Order: sequence, then C-alpha cells, then structure tokens
Amino acid sequence: MKRRYAVLALDRFERDAKTAHGVIAYGSDEVVAVIDPACAGRTVYDVLPHLASEAPIVAGVDEALRYEPTALLIGTAPQGGALPPDWRQAVLEALEAGLDVVSGLHDMLGEDENFAAVAREHDCEIWDVRKPPAVPLFSGAVYGVTAPTLLLVGNDCAVGKMTAALEIVRAANDAGANARFVPTGQTGIMIAGWGIAIDRVISDFAAGATEQLVLFAAHERANLIVVEGQGAINHPAYAPVTLALMYGSAPDALVLVCAPQKAHIEGFETPSLGYAALIRIHEELLATVKPAKVVGIALNTRGLDEATARAEIERAQAETQLPADDVVRFGPHRLYGAIAPALTRHAPLRSAAVA
Amino acid sequence: MKRRYAVLALDRFERDAKTAHGVIAYGSDEVVAVIDPACAGRTVYDVLPHLASEAPIVAGVDEALRYEPTALLIGTAPQGGALPPDWRQAVLEALEAGLDVVSGLHDMLGEDENFAAVAREHDCEIWDVRKPPAVPLFSGAVYGVTAPTLLLVGNDCAVGKMTAALEIVRAANDAGANARFVPTGQTGIMIAGWGIAIDRVISDFAAGATEQLVLFAAHERANLIVVEGQGAINHPAYAPVTLALMYGSAPDALVLVCAPQKAHIEGFETPSLGYAALIRIHEELLATVKPAKVVGIALNTRGLDEATARAEIERAQAETQLPADDVVRFGPHRLYGAIAPALTRHAPLRSAAVA
Repeated sequence: MKRRYAVLALDRFERDAKTAHGVIAYGSDEVVAVIDPACAGRTVYDVLPHLASEAPIVAGVDEALRYEPTALLIGTAPQGGALPPDWRQAVLEALEAGLDVVSGLHDMLGEDENFAAVAREHDCEIWDVRKPPAVPLFSGAVYGVTAPTLLLVGNDCAVGKMTAALEIVRAANDAGANARFVPTGQTGIMIAGWGIAIDRVISDFAAGATEQLVLFAAHERANLIVVEGQGAINHPAYAPVTLALMYGSAPDALVLVCAPQKAHIEGFETPSLGYAALIRIHEELLATVKPAKVVGIALNTRGLDEATARAEIERAQAETQLPADDVVRFGPHRLYGAIAPALTRHAPLRSAAVA
Repeated sequence: MKRRYAVLALDRFERDAKTAHGVIAYGSDEVVAVIDPACAGRTVYDVLPHLASEAPIVAGVDEALRYEPTALLIGTAPQGGALPPDWRQAVLEALEAGLDVVSGLHDMLGEDENFAAVAREHDCEIWDVRKPPAVPLFSGAVYGVTAPTLLLVGNDCAVGKMTAALEIVRAANDAGANARFVPTGQTGIMIAGWGIAIDRVISDFAAGATEQLVLFAAHERANLIVVEGQGAINHPAYAPVTLALMYGSAPDALVLVCAPQKAHIEGFETPSLGYAALIRIHEELLATVKPAKVVGIALNTRGLDEATARAEIERAQAETQLPADDVVRFGPHRLYGAIAPALTRHAPLRSAAVA
C-alpha cells in the first residue's frame, strides 16, 4: 500500500533537504505536506518549482495531520547522519498521532528506546532505510550478469547522480527497455522501496552489498541495470563508497555526473577533478578489475542561465568527445539515445576463482 | 600486565594463521603454546623457523593449560571473519579454564550469548579487537599533523604490509627516531595493543577512523608515523579499505609492499598491478587530496632462493628508480636509510574548510 508522507524538514526544506526533494520528485509514494516553519503557508511549488508538487508547507506536525498522512518521512540526511536534536519532539508527536516513521539517518530511530516504546504503544512502524541487511563478501558472481550495467559517478557528492540515474531509466523504459534503477543510498531506497545504503555497510562488505543489489536486479530480469552512484573518487571522506560501487557493481559503462562550476569538493579544499582526469582515473581503476568506459556526461546546470548551460554542454562534448546533456533541464532522451549503442556487455568478463 | 597466550589454530597453523604468525613474531605478549592437532608434538620453530619461537604445539586446550596461559588468542581471521564452527568447543573450554579470549574475527565473540555467559561465570574477559569504537567523520584535522606520515600499500592482501611497517618502525627507532606503528587491522592491534580494524568500520566513517589513529599517534609525540596498509587498490572486494587508509591517513610518502611473483589478486582472476601502474595509480589518486609520492619498495621474497630474491630487488630498483629491499630477509636498515631523506612533510597541506 502506498504511503501518504508528511515530510519533516524543519528550517531546511529550501536548502538542505535532498532526501525530501528526491522523494517529492521521484517517489511513488505521495507527499501530502511538508513541515517547515521557515516556509509555512507556501506550497512546494512556490519554494522549489522544479519539484512540480502542489503539496502545502505547514509549521508543525499537528497542522500536517489535517492532510491525513500515514507516515512521517525524515526529509534530511545531514553529514554524520544524526537526528537534529530539535527534531525529536516532532518525531514523537508523529508517532503519538499513529504515523509510521521513515528515516535515512545513520542514527537508527528504531533503536532509540523512547521512539521504540512510543511506536509500540501506538502500533506504528519505524523504517530505518539505512539499516543494512547481512550480506556476503564480494564473490565475483556479478561477473556472470548478462544485462548491461551502467554506473553513475561524479565530481562530488550531491551533484545529481541519483536523479541522472532515474532519468536515464525513464528514457530507457520509454524506448522499450526493461531498465531497473538500483538504489545505493537512503533517498534512492525511499523512492524505489528497496536497496542498500552502501555508506552504512561495514567496509569489508561494501563491494559485496553492491554485488547483491546488481544480482537482485538481474534476477528481476532487467535488461539494463542502472546503479545509483555515491560520493566522488577524490572525496577525502566518501571515496571508499564510490570505489565499492565501482568494483562491486562490475559496470560495463559509466556516465559522469558533473556540476561544471564546482571548483572543489564541498567542505574541503580538495580541487574537483576535470573531465579528462575523471575519465582517466575511473577507467584506470576499473581496467584490471572489470574494464568499462565512460560513455557520456550528465551535466547539472542548475543555477546557470540557458545560454551558459548550453555552452557548458558544448564544452563537455568538445573536451571529451562524448555525448553530454543536462537530463533534468533538457530531458534524458537525447543523452540516452546517444549512449544506448554503448550499453552492451562487450567488455571481457572476469570470474571469481576459488583460490 | 602482559598476557601469556595459547594460540588457537586448529589444523591451520602452518598455512592459514596470519594472525598467529604476526603475534608470535612481533607481539609484546608471550605465546606459550599453539593449539593445532595437525602439528602437535613439534615446536613453532620446527614448522615455521622464521617466526623464531620455541613455543610447543599441542593438540588441544587441555594440553595447552600445562604451559599456564592467561588468554586464548584466536589465531586466524578467515575471509568473512566467522568463527569456524568446530572452534566453538575450544573457546568454551578455554573460558571454563579461566582464560581470557582475544579475537580478531568479524563475529563478535563477546556478543555470543553462550560465550558471554560462560565468561561472566568464570570472570574472564573477551576482547573483540575488531569491534570499532564510535568515530567521527573525516574532518581534515589530520592535515595539521606535523610529523611525517608513511603509509604502506601493496599489490595484494597478505603480502607483508604489516610486517614491513613494523620493520621500518624498528629501523627508524634504531636510528634514533620516535617512530610509531599505527595498527589498522586485527593482528596489528593485537601486536600493538591499540588501533582500529578499518575493515570493520562503517564505510562512511572509514576515512574518519583512520584520521583518528594518525591524530592519536601525533598526540603521542611520534616524529614518524607509519600506518599499516590493508588490501590493494585493485582488489575487487577490499580496495575501499585501501582507499580509506590513503585519504584518511593523509600520508606524506608511500612504501609499496609487493610479492613480486604474484600474477593475480588471491581468489580472483584480476591481474596484479606492476610497479609502474601501482605507483601511477596511488600517486594520481592522492594528487588532489594529499599529494604524496612512493619513496621505496619492500619486496616479499619468501619462497624464492637468495639469488632470485636479489635479482627481484635489482629489477624493482631498475624499473622504478626507487630503493627496494626485502626488509624481513635482509633487515630493514638499508631500506630505511635510503627512504629516510624522503620522509619529510614537504607536500602542500590541504586543510578542511567548513563549507
């Protein structure tokens, strides 16, 4: 049964609620209200027109209840993943009103004694989407998958890798494929209803968890598997997750997702890599593990005027000799059409040998 | 107080007990007996002369008790890290005899209800060395460390990165430095009595955990910090741990540890990287994050005759123009002397900026 979400985004909806934005734009569950006193009285469309939702923004949980939600969605996943302290009261109010709670935080709300007790009392469920299942070590079974697998990689966190993956899946399915989006982070899991937050998996098992996701998609008879990317290969904190996805998904092809105006990794002085360096380093890392090429570039031109956006797309194409486009701004069909011929499983496969 | 270890290595001591071998060769605690029916009646020296230990090998826990151990050390850490099922009985016998248990398995023996109950009853302690503490995300504070930091990297797991690190620390301290070994895996932790098993840390926090270890060593006034490496950068399963160490320790210099005869990554068909590729890929990954150069090569020539070993060392030097040696076979002093001038913190530092 579909959920009706009230999305909790206290004072953060406009700027710092990537989870909320993703679920509103792409989720199959309905968002009936957003809770953020800073924007109360307006609609989602008023604040963020590109999300194309008329859901009202209200000041508190009590007011959100008027729109008959069935669940409270924690609309943010801050670095480190702790529940902002002033959000506790809202979570308790929601549970007391009988709402389920869906959270992508590192903090497991279901393991909080107070929340767990109130949830039991009111017969509510707490779904910590980031809580990983037990998974085996990477085995190499993924090398036997015959459907072509595409992995999204990028020049930083939060540049639109999940969105690009969802848009490419949409274009592929419009073109008659049975493409499947493979969620690897909390927002993707909330949107698709399955997946594993790879950043929450014990390091030794991160490639193995990714492998399991691709095997699941293959088992569901997908004929194109599109794996959500995470982090960036030169991100000082999160690159290990990026690399686990690269080796664990054993892709046949990569699409680079870049915010072209980025000068450095968010929060650090580490410079962002340019197209040539990104292509070289991803392809070199994969060369001995599961050879794969970058086949296209999905630019995130948000905040640029249209002429500048088109110029950035031209520049990316000229510099890399690869197809490029902004799949949100201009739709995914042109880029998908250009990369589709490259999405074949032509690369030599490597199989795991029991040593 | 120092422990007196009985080392459990049922039918695996000779071939598959890396943890046991490391603790026997380098640990500050004494190994008084090894339990392995396959080699019972011999000594450690009889089976593995290079470990330079006269400890007896016995068939069971009861027999080991004659040598008055104070703790049982689980002498293996198999892939996936589960306790071999037939080892349970031996662990129970040890606890019932009042021995503490020290384990580097992924399985937390202290969380096993049966083991925990027997340990309580007999007033024993179970130390799961791989259980990670809570750590913060990577912050960049490590960029402020002034002591030069050396990280060991290699062409596969189990090629001798920990051993090379310990030998280099020994040579540095013999030369008057205050060098500190930074343990990042279960055997290193057992040897040094502190550290974090980075492979057991949640992926998002793996670089942050590494950073904390280097900060601790710096706080202890080390003037050379030598970080134990893990995995290999093209290991299909474990490379994310390798990358977490590279970015999290923010090294000034790298030493490559290579088994020169390796054709592929153990357990997979993935080819091992040659010297040139290893140097290029590690330096390129670090270039924008914390620039560092490979300054020397520690070869593991075990199993090669001396002439072949010397030829491999010559080849490594000729191919890379870097100093190379086998620091176990020929001692660490020559290689340390050759790399010491390069162990200065000359690389430009990057500091974390709060975005």
